Amino acid sequence: MKKYLFGVDIGGTTIKLGIISTEGHIIDKWEITTKKGDQSDQIPNDIWEALSLKMNDHQIDKNQVLGIGAGAPGFVMTETGVIAQAVNLGWIDFPLGELLKNLSGLPVYIDNDANIAALGENWLGSGDLAENLVAITLGTGVGGGIIANGQIVSGTNGMAGEIGHMTMQYNGAPCNCGRNGCLETIASATGIARITNERIDKYPNSILRDIRSLKGKVTAKDVFDAYKESDELATEVVNHITDVLGLAISNIATIVNPSKIVVGGGVSKAKDALLVPLEAAYKRYALPRIVEGSSFTIASLGNDAGIIGGAYLVKQHQL
Amino acid sequence: MKKYLFGVDIGGTTIKLGIISTEGHIIDKWEITTKKGDQSDQIPNDIWEALSLKMNDHQIDKNQVLGIGAGAPGFVMTETGVIAQAVNLGWIDFPLGELLKNLSGLPVYIDNDANIAALGENWLGSGDLAENLVAITLGTGVGGGIIANGQIVSGTNGMAGEIGHMTMQYNGAPCNCGRNGCLETIASATGIARITNERIDKYPNSILRDIRSLKGKVTAKDVFDAYKESDELATEVVNHITDVLGLAISNIATIVNPSKIVVGGGVSKAKDALLVPLEAAYKRYALPRIVEGSSFTIASLGNDAGIIGGAYLVKQHQL
Repeated sequence: MKKYLFGVDIGGTTIKLGIISTEGHIIDKWEITTKKGDQSDQIPNDIWEALSLKMNDHQIDKNQVLGIGAGAPGFVMTETGVIAQAVNLGWIDFPLGELLKNLSGLPVYIDNDANIAALGENWLGSGDLAENLVAITLGTGVGGGIIANGQIVSGTNGMAGEIGHMTMQYNGAPCNCGRNGCLETIASATGIARITNERIDKYPNSILRDIRSLKGKVTAKDVFDAYKESDELATEVVNHITDVLGLAISNIATIVNPSKIVVGGGVSKAKDALLVPLEAAYKRYALPRIVEGSSFTIASLGNDAGIIGGAYLVKQHQL
Repeated sequence: MKKYLFGVDIGGTTIKLGIISTEGHIIDKWEITTKKGDQSDQIPNDIWEALSLKMNDHQIDKNQVLGIGAGAPGFVMTETGVIAQAVNLGWIDFPLGELLKNLSGLPVYIDNDANIAALGENWLGSGDLAENLVAITLGTGVGGGIIANGQIVSGTNGMAGEIGHMTMQYNGAPCNCGRNGCLETIASATGIARITNERIDKYPNSILRDIRSLKGKVTAKDVFDAYKESDELATEVVNHITDVLGLAISNIATIVNPSKIVVGGGVSKAKDALLVPLEAAYKRYALPRIVEGSSFTIASLGNDAGIIGGAYLVKQHQL
């Protein structure tokens, strides 16, 4: 009898869902709107209703489903499936795992969304089932997921892999977390734009000034585009942010000694313009044997990483 | 029938051995001299001979022994038990696991000595069987061991937990590893003495100057003793090194989110003179929720951590 895995990726705006075969084929994937409702059971109800309807469509019987794996934003207590805090969803100590389990009668596994995405990349994306992997997402913020000994590292209270909040600069720029100099203030799309704007007046000939005049602002994408044109300001900014990010990754690698370092998120669309200076910085700071054991790649699953990782979390527990 | 675990801790000068019950009682422990012999099988032969003799003494039959767990200095490939490199012992790609297994006919598990010591502290020392733990040893160098999801993190090629080589300072002091600004150049006993000596001429009233006149040098212990007497130079040095170490630990904790941070090695004998400023620094740099989930302790097993950790490695695999 064919068996299936359900992957769920809960975001602040949409919930992504997927039915995935045990071999890793996406049978179906779709989205529903996230209806936020503080501590109510709206979200688990919506998830189970959506999954039930599709089971019908695909004529999948419940005894063919090995379980539900779900990623949620925030601090997840993986042993109990309780979301200690998810600011975007208004949840505090929310028993997501228990509610989904009671609704579905299926085994349910919950982890942080960034960790689940790392697991997805490791299964069907750029990770190639590495036993030890570091995934970094460079978007509005900087997120991360760590896999050690083949398992997600979630930590004591769901805080492992919060790479964006490594302190990289004494008295650095203020971070949303209330502290200063976090990696996120430097290597996120937001950080790259901020640093560029701070320095732009010193570079009268930079093409980024024209872009700012034209669009009213400069984005991280503009900076990498200008870097490819050897713009002086863009070169300075890219060298700076990849230096700091390379140092952060070298220190992470000194802890977990990964074989794969997977870089995703919007900023990673710059591809070699990001990876080449980033790898150079990494090599400056990491022990040679750690460098030898590791390689960099760009994440390849995009928005599907979450549902695929959720499915793999089930597979890992059930097979 | 009573079952036993053999723990072995291979050092450059002595090899420590222990017979340990599955409940964690040390039945016997002793040392033999390390006879270095490049690629020869001297060391595994010596280990098995020593263990065999004691089995006789204690009337332990081989079928009562669950296995041998051994820690070796250097880069260990844990899956195969091959020591990729152990500079102190002259080993390169040395098949320690296989040799010990062939000699003994027992299951053999090998890991890095610092990792094994962390596992020992976690079983019978200060760790209380934490699922997620960071162990840091502040001695001549700075070593470390990471436990995540209850397991040692060894990494891709035996380099995980090389905490001493996190880069903490741009263009910092040269490290034995050939790079600059490693944590080891600052927070080891050697680093503390070096930093003190560099600053001593600026503090004409420091009691550390008298000590240097008397003994010809200043040690890390002298610095912490002077710190307890509120010596100005000692205060500056202790504040500096605990600030850097606290930042390093906060960044490690941001990756693995440990419940226990166990500090050992000679420098940890300073106890509160080290821990109080160290915890204050940690709190400056780590996310509040990470701080809440973690506590600092001093390692309690001393030189027995290695044999106990070796024994636990067997227990973990066999039970």
